[in-house]
Amino acid sequence: MSPSEPITSLTNDRIKRLVRLRSRRERDRTGAFLVEGYRELQRAVAAGIEITEAYHCPGLWLGENEPALLEACRAAGAEIVEVAEAPFRKASYRDRPEGLLGVARQFPTGLDRLDPGARPLLLVAESIEKPGNLGTMLRTAEAAGADAVIVCDPATDPFNPNVVRASLGTLFRVPLAVAPTDHTIAWLREQRVASFAATPAGAVPHYEADLTGPAALVVGSEQYGLTDAWLHGADRRVVIPMPGSVDSLNAAMSAGILLFEAVRQRAGAA
Amino acid sequence: MSPSEPITSLTNDRIKRLVRLRSRRERDRTGAFLVEGYRELQRAVAAGIEITEAYHCPGLWLGENEPALLEACRAAGAEIVEVAEAPFRKASYRDRPEGLLGVARQFPTGLDRLDPGARPLLLVAESIEKPGNLGTMLRTAEAAGADAVIVCDPATDPFNPNVVRASLGTLFRVPLAVAPTDHTIAWLREQRVASFAATPAGAVPHYEADLTGPAALVVGSEQYGLTDAWLHGADRRVVIPMPGSVDSLNAAMSAGILLFEAVRQRAGAA
Repeated sequence: MSPSEPITSLTNDRIKRLVRLRSRRERDRTGAFLVEGYRELQRAVAAGIEITEAYHCPGLWLGENEPALLEACRAAGAEIVEVAEAPFRKASYRDRPEGLLGVARQFPTGLDRLDPGARPLLLVAESIEKPGNLGTMLRTAEAAGADAVIVCDPATDPFNPNVVRASLGTLFRVPLAVAPTDHTIAWLREQRVASFAATPAGAVPHYEADLTGPAALVVGSEQYGLTDAWLHGADRRVVIPMPGSVDSLNAAMSAGILLFEAVRQRAGAA
Repeated sequence: MSPSEPITSLTNDRIKRLVRLRSRRERDRTGAFLVEGYRELQRAVAAGIEITEAYHCPGLWLGENEPALLEACRAAGAEIVEVAEAPFRKASYRDRPEGLLGVARQFPTGLDRLDPGARPLLLVAESIEKPGNLGTMLRTAEAAGADAVIVCDPATDPFNPNVVRASLGTLFRVPLAVAPTDHTIAWLREQRVASFAATPAGAVPHYEADLTGPAALVVGSEQYGLTDAWLHGADRRVVIPMPGSVDSLNAAMSAGILLFEAVRQRAGAA
């Protein structure tokens, strides 16, 4: 079947491949990942992410801008493939698909590619397990104007479709690195960025730490918090004081509270 | 079948009822709701929530404290019913059930039941649609030591199983009211609690507003923000300054950032 003919079969090889790309193994093997949804695909294209294929199902579109977005994908080199509703729903990982599903090439995420600038605000997230939490962190870091997000020893890869989704495509806006914890600690030292590890055992409330200089805010996994490497390796250990009970903040919320405390301090310092 | 015999049939009437309780209609009709999971059920019992039935499936238990919790449920008046794995999985709304599923009686949520105290910190959430967001707000409000959460014109009811779940059972710890927006505005006036509506159009950054007095922090729905009733009816309109893009904070994250700014200010004022 030529790609100019719509895909109608549920067992089409391309549909099967889209389903397989939900698994990390297939993403690691192929270096590809899924970008589903209008906003997400639009942000990927705007960020210059390489889209190799854009699958679309006009019957599911929610708005009127989809043809223009597909045209932008085509202009950037993507193959455009129409899909009938049943196979599109099979390929989609959403409950309510919007009729747009791109395949993109994973972009490099080496620490060496980051350019932290003079007074960076960085978010470091260690061993986050839930893609939704990692996506929310990216989204919140973008809102806070963070200069980069560094994912250490990831338990979920940032190209997981649910990271793309929960990030609303901000995955393509915030500079992102993936690196082992020890490399990250060494790199922050080299860059003269002070690291602030968030832990219930921190001696200083986060709002008493000076976050106006070059700063990396470090949060740990949902279940276990930060590893000893960070607890010992960070420059400061800060606690988010909780008048209520201590297990009630999730990892993404902790990251958001730290980031926006830095925003507050930096507004005052500017 | 006597309740002392385990339920083994997928079509048992009790199993069907548990499934029906996922719908708001059935919850509204019966005044009952589901409390699934060890931590959630434990917190409900500890808070004195009336548990009418506790269904359990020992093969799915994760720890060793389940019998003691069931005994506490029984002592508080619950009927204890064992369920075989297949029907338990059908009744469960989780991907990985923990073998404990309670049915509880909805508790009163009238504004008149709140006792805000002298210098309360309240969270008001208007028309939140996603149960996960409402649950996260409850969890975060509990961590911040908020005195109550008021849910205005709810698009999701607080007895939705996903609210219970996302709240980790803090639904049973934070005093909760459900009320129309206009009643809430009038009640806050009566109680002399200042209201701070979070809106991108706010003139004052949230951290420049004085949140140390009796304060209600008001956040709107994920999609539409606050209604005009709040935008005009609140005492102050505050903005969370975002150096990045403005659509990148979700409703629960905004609530958390406001709550923990109040925590910061109150620690300094104390």
